[in-house]
Amino acid sequence: MTRRITLLTDFGTADGYVAAIKGVIAAIAPAAPIDDAAHDIPPGDVWAAAWALARYWRLYPPETVHLVVVDPGVGGDRRPIVAEVDGRLFIAPDNGVLTRVLADVAPSGLFLIENERYRRPTVSATFHGRDLFAPAAAYLAQGIAPAELGPPISDPVLLPLREPVRSGNRAIGEVVHVDRFGNLITNLPAAWCRGAIEVRIAGRSVGPLRRTYVDAAPGELLALVGSADLLEVAARDASAAALLGAGRGETVIVDFGSLTLPGGASHGESV
Amino acid sequence: MTRRITLLTDFGTADGYVAAIKGVIAAIAPAAPIDDAAHDIPPGDVWAAAWALARYWRLYPPETVHLVVVDPGVGGDRRPIVAEVDGRLFIAPDNGVLTRVLADVAPSGLFLIENERYRRPTVSATFHGRDLFAPAAAYLAQGIAPAELGPPISDPVLLPLREPVRSGNRAIGEVVHVDRFGNLITNLPAAWCRGAIEVRIAGRSVGPLRRTYVDAAPGELLALVGSADLLEVAARDASAAALLGAGRGETVIVDFGSLTLPGGASHGESV
Amino acid sequence: MTRRITLLTDFGTADGYVAAIKGVIAAIAPAAPIDDAAHDIPPGDVWAAAWALARYWRLYPPETVHLVVVDPGVGGDRRPIVAEVDGRLFIAPDNGVLTRVLADVAPSGLFLIENERYRRPTVSATFHGRDLFAPAAAYLAQGIAPAELGPPISDPVLLPLREPVRSGNRAIGEVVHVDRFGNLITNLPAAWCRGAIEVRIAGRSVGPLRRTYVDAAPGELLALVGSADLLEVAARDASAAALLGAGRGETVIVDFGSLTLPGGASHGESV
Repeated sequence: MTRRITLLTDFGTADGYVAAIKGVIAAIAPAAPIDDAAHDIPPGDVWAAAWALARYWRLYPPETVHLVVVDPGVGGDRRPIVAEVDGRLFIAPDNGVLTRVLADVAPSGLFLIENERYRRPTVSATFHGRDLFAPAAAYLAQGIAPAELGPPISDPVLLPLREPVRSGNRAIGEVVHVDRFGNLITNLPAAWCRGAIEVRIAGRSVGPLRRTYVDAAPGELLALVGSADLLEVAARDASAAALLGAGRGETVIVDFGSLTLPGGASHGESV
Repeated sequence: MTRRITLLTDFGTADGYVAAIKGVIAAIAPAAPIDDAAHDIPPGDVWAAAWALARYWRLYPPETVHLVVVDPGVGGDRRPIVAEVDGRLFIAPDNGVLTRVLADVAPSGLFLIENERYRRPTVSATFHGRDLFAPAAAYLAQGIAPAELGPPISDPVLLPLREPVRSGNRAIGEVVHVDRFGNLITNLPAAWCRGAIEVRIAGRSVGPLRRTYVDAAPGELLALVGSADLLEVAARDASAAALLGAGRGETVIVDFGSLTLPGGASHGESV
Repeated sequence: MTRRITLLTDFGTADGYVAAIKGVIAAIAPAAPIDDAAHDIPPGDVWAAAWALARYWRLYPPETVHLVVVDPGVGGDRRPIVAEVDGRLFIAPDNGVLTRVLADVAPSGLFLIENERYRRPTVSATFHGRDLFAPAAAYLAQGIAPAELGPPISDPVLLPLREPVRSGNRAIGEVVHVDRFGNLITNLPAAWCRGAIEVRIAGRSVGPLRRTYVDAAPGELLALVGSADLLEVAARDASAAALLGAGRGETVIVDFGSLTLPGGASHGESV
């Protein structure tokens, strides 16, 4: 049985880099289906890649090999790693791109990739995707065990995810991703947002929590729980990011009013 | 036999949304080939999606499942539907995106998607592509009949396509799509354009009908019959849309001169 | 055995053109895997397509069918051709897009595509990708021999590649491709660059040869040998093309100092 491989990169689709990776895989594991996950991650944006990966890795069935090549430190001292998490396999540079996978589920295996049998004979200093990660993914698809790639490690690089906080009658979080539609996705979990009477961002109120985009008027800003079960600030048929001039890291405040939380005093300040 | 699935979205390729859909399909129908049709439909542009779909649905063989997720009304009262047309199957929101399919060939089946067996256990209000459309497509690929998804319907939403008109020695239509090259594709059928002595758009003449792009000088505007068998205004090695500042809805006039149509009076006015 | 097909175009992914090609292939060769190579080649840019193709064609295993549809001369007198090179098969317009393949390895077969059995019944003047190239590729994938497509030819169109030169203690080349990251890739082979003490471009020095991107400071320009084994001018976590305002054709000078090359006189001029 050949395993399916997914491919997430920041290579865009105007060069031959993505096809170079696919060619290496096809030469080693010709029967492995290769799914393009996304190739327009902004160049070197490990945070955006970590976010994108979190949207799909567990929807794929066990045995899937998720290959991630967003690798601004290529050729430096960052390590190439393989992880086994909930039955799925990951090949990636150890630069934090697996943070949202590893923060979610403890890995059942985590190894360095260093076995020279499973790489191309010559490894360039600038394209480990082709010379090192693609062959490793292809051999995993062919059935080798992750442990064959190298010795175990226990200290993967993790991005410093910031947790939202609850304080009085408010919850405070931040934008963690801006998607293609200009939706501003936050780190505030849905469970924290029930009963919200007002959501504020960038000095503006976007009203109470609504259910979906068409609950706002065209062009209107709104807050809702998005498909990642997190609070999202959006605009109907428009880009909330453009309307607000806001991006990753922007503070988002959820207000529950004075009646909602026990002992919550009324807070009149605007943000 | 597993059916092939094609995927048309406005999700772009910088997020994990496309891969989420593919992951859901892979988990249900692991042997179904998935073809990316196009993912850079402008956000929420149902007209552009309807146009793109019309370019390929019938070139695929019967049994193909065409999945379309351009869904600005997600979570509102628009219906999810499945259609069977000329042996191909379509899964889409009922927002008009199938207009050019249904306008072309009467469907042999048209059903609501509401059977809970064929969706994810929890359906978010903002990502039916993942939670409802992808599972439905995957189960179709596995061989279930469209009628298993829900009860028949007979009133699909159709976009208000405007027909071109013939008047005296002229035919008048409009631009219905602008493609990546800036070609302005109209609703004027090739059969109406034979013998045209002049095509006019946005106050300019682009000359008589020519055969292909290289029949014009570099940078020159021209009119020709494009690959959809419709009149197209293009510019050799350049964007007609940019040169003319024109887009969807722009009026296009085909002039046959005084000799071409019986009884046609000479019309001297410019447009 | 069905052969794998790769697909390189300038069609973008906002229209239905790519899917039209895939649909035609799926109808003829349903079991052929289709790999998207790249679809965002700049419109009509045969040089960029030739470069991209060179990055992957030989990494794919023998028998692969590489389909290239970057075809600004469609419908004119440029010929459609099929080439067999090192066991791989190529279908393309004869506009130079195969230059970097044919310059690298002599073809074992080169034929015109003119057999009407292997095309669509009606061939439009503007979309040979769909009507002529896709069917030809699909029939090759099904196992027909290239010679069945048409008579041999011996004079393929080749782009005028310019060779770098060595003069005194300097090597002089030019930028041949700008990639998604803004890396300026040159025609100077790695073997010529050993011992370089300074690389100059656009009136600026980018220092000596370094090994990889992280050997420069963030935002700093640098020169290194890239993954094509050619000299590349890059910028760490930034676009060298944007920083230098440089593009294809820009002159690049490698200086070896007075001691490096036998008999090399000191050249003091700046560039």
